[in-house]
Amino acid sequence: MDRIMKERTSVGTARKIFLEAIQPLQRTERMEIAGCVGRVLSTSILASRNVPHYRRSAMDGFAVRSADITGASPTNPVMLQVADSIEEGSCVQVSTGAYVPEEADAVLMLEDTISIGDMIEVRAQVHPGKNVGETGEDVRKGEIIFNKGHLLRPCDIAVMASLGIREVTVHSKPIVAIIPTGNDLVPLQDTGLPPAGRTLDINSLMIGLYVTKWGAVPRYSEIVPENRDLIRKAISRYLDADLIVISGGTSVGEKDYVPDVLASMGKKLVHGVGLSPGKPTALGVIANVPVLCMPGYPAAGLVALFAFGKPAVLKAGNVPGTADIIVKARLTGKITSREGYVSYARVILEDDGMSFLARPLMTAGAGILSSIAKSGGFVIVPENVEGYEEGNEVDVVLIE
Amino acid sequence: MDRIMKERTSVGTARKIFLEAIQPLQRTERMEIAGCVGRVLSTSILASRNVPHYRRSAMDGFAVRSADITGASPTNPVMLQVADSIEEGSCVQVSTGAYVPEEADAVLMLEDTISIGDMIEVRAQVHPGKNVGETGEDVRKGEIIFNKGHLLRPCDIAVMASLGIREVTVHSKPIVAIIPTGNDLVPLQDTGLPPAGRTLDINSLMIGLYVTKWGAVPRYSEIVPENRDLIRKAISRYLDADLIVISGGTSVGEKDYVPDVLASMGKKLVHGVGLSPGKPTALGVIANVPVLCMPGYPAAGLVALFAFGKPAVLKAGNVPGTADIIVKARLTGKITSREGYVSYARVILEDDGMSFLARPLMTAGAGILSSIAKSGGFVIVPENVEGYEEGNEVDVVLIE
Repeated sequence: MDRIMKERTSVGTARKIFLEAIQPLQRTERMEIAGCVGRVLSTSILASRNVPHYRRSAMDGFAVRSADITGASPTNPVMLQVADSIEEGSCVQVSTGAYVPEEADAVLMLEDTISIGDMIEVRAQVHPGKNVGETGEDVRKGEIIFNKGHLLRPCDIAVMASLGIREVTVHSKPIVAIIPTGNDLVPLQDTGLPPAGRTLDINSLMIGLYVTKWGAVPRYSEIVPENRDLIRKAISRYLDADLIVISGGTSVGEKDYVPDVLASMGKKLVHGVGLSPGKPTALGVIANVPVLCMPGYPAAGLVALFAFGKPAVLKAGNVPGTADIIVKARLTGKITSREGYVSYARVILEDDGMSFLARPLMTAGAGILSSIAKSGGFVIVPENVEGYEEGNEVDVVLIE
Repeated sequence: MDRIMKERTSVGTARKIFLEAIQPLQRTERMEIAGCVGRVLSTSILASRNVPHYRRSAMDGFAVRSADITGASPTNPVMLQVADSIEEGSCVQVSTGAYVPEEADAVLMLEDTISIGDMIEVRAQVHPGKNVGETGEDVRKGEIIFNKGHLLRPCDIAVMASLGIREVTVHSKPIVAIIPTGNDLVPLQDTGLPPAGRTLDINSLMIGLYVTKWGAVPRYSEIVPENRDLIRKAISRYLDADLIVISGGTSVGEKDYVPDVLASMGKKLVHGVGLSPGKPTALGVIANVPVLCMPGYPAAGLVALFAFGKPAVLKAGNVPGTADIIVKARLTGKITSREGYVSYARVILEDDGMSFLARPLMTAGAGILSSIAKSGGFVIVPENVEGYEEGNEVDVVLIE
């Protein structure tokens, strides 16, 4: 009976303890800007030139010396010669964005003129500076345009391109080692139906695809049998990774050696979390490498991965936290939750044309795969809430 | 004066007209599942096997014949022999997920037993079927597991892997041709500061990176001068694309030929939209290929790309619409908008620890690059709203 896992750390505390054990990566790399969408700047970016780098016209019209047309109006028009350069009484036609000649101090809008041969009749006056964008008006040379730590969007890359920047230094992606454990696991590569009692290792692929999405590089281990020495050896092989995710072997069955190995090789920070499903999650550090031991059951593993793996990967990768996509939906049925546990209730999202409905999935166990396939999101029920009633409006976190 | 663009279609109507002209792609391709995150299924997926494909234990414990332990309790325990197979009076130890032998009809929890040598003292009875997952309980062979049109998430790929599926058929990615126009544009590849009056073509890269993000494949054209014939020729070269985005040449300046060419080669659906910035946007169809002509000014082009390019790419690619990421924020200043226009006001998002603040950016013109770099999102002001006051809570759509 002493093998029953009695300890239980709250999700919030467990996450805090785990994240404190994770250092953002120091490694950086130099990359061409076009490949940097989703990457994070490791240095601030200064503007190496003024934008605009010349005085530019803000309108389609004529570059003029404002003094030449003082007092012009529809009833008192002034005639100007359209020319290639500016002298007293002449003007230069410009389109929006064009260079405004040195000698001009304003741009007259096309709409305020009437074209007569190579002359224009000017029907409005302009103030000096009108419709002229000064050099450096948008971005001044030397100005910080992006701060260190900025997550690069396509539009940011366009902004950098406009400054003549071709390469930037970004934080390297964390390496995440993925170690599946279990005597009954079969590699995904094996063809045919696994023998009774044996299941395909789908967690490695699932973890690998998610950490890739979150900006890391997965490194896949072979399946490790439930044997202390072999688990120890497998972990040792991956201590050059930035994060280790071990799948399986964390509940209280006879062969659940992983948390023990974690404790013997390093520091076991947490074992047993107020998370449903996902209670058997263990967290620790070995030789400065954070280790997440998540339950082997896919649905529970997925919840542990979202609750602990995602913030860990983002912190290691220096990626600023991004908001989850949340939609408001009305429950079509009751959601109950275990007191003292943060419960991730899977729901089917339906759009009734006006608003979203969230249909709770009957999830008989943590291993129910079809519930993942069907569910659009999680309703996350906090520890201190008993559940929600049919008809309640709830936040549904979309499963990414 | 007749060149002034008077026509103005509302954003909603313009988008509807444009999307009606777009057919979702029929092309499909066969891919290995591991590469299918973000891809869309073009056929429904049926389960080719039962999950589980054997009767499996839902707990760590002992597979038993329930009749053998009828009436067992702490005060009236029953002894069972732990063996390798089930006969009357014997049981088989099983861990969660393990095969439950044919002869057993229930699994007794480990916690309800005391181990005594190779015997166990059973302190609870179980009903037939207890803690046994029946074959096909999770997914039944032949059942539809994902519908046609489903956008694949990493967890879905894991579910497919568990069914022994290695390849699926997905919709092909739309090809988006990107044609920059303008006499004053300089290719991004050119080194050094462009001459006065000339600007780098950053829109092509910006459009290319965004359409890639939305699931398309960009094809880049060279810069096309503002000449009807050359624009016509450039468009003709890309009529095998699924969508054409032309940047620049849509306002009312003397050299804005693109909408005219659009009308002469096909059908101009819309020219002039109630969108600020982004009014000069034109939409049309040439030889069944939808064409988006967006303003050349990056900030206005970006807004037109979000308002029209994104839904177009998603529809062509059969990608189900995904919700924008929206955060609630309190305005630190007033936002004014033009009546009759949907205004995209750029804001800086600041987190004051408790909530978000949205600081409106002073955007003197549509071409202001730095405003893109600084802004975290848009406050989208509908046509019928005059603007928002300091202190108002607003929805900020994060710029992706």
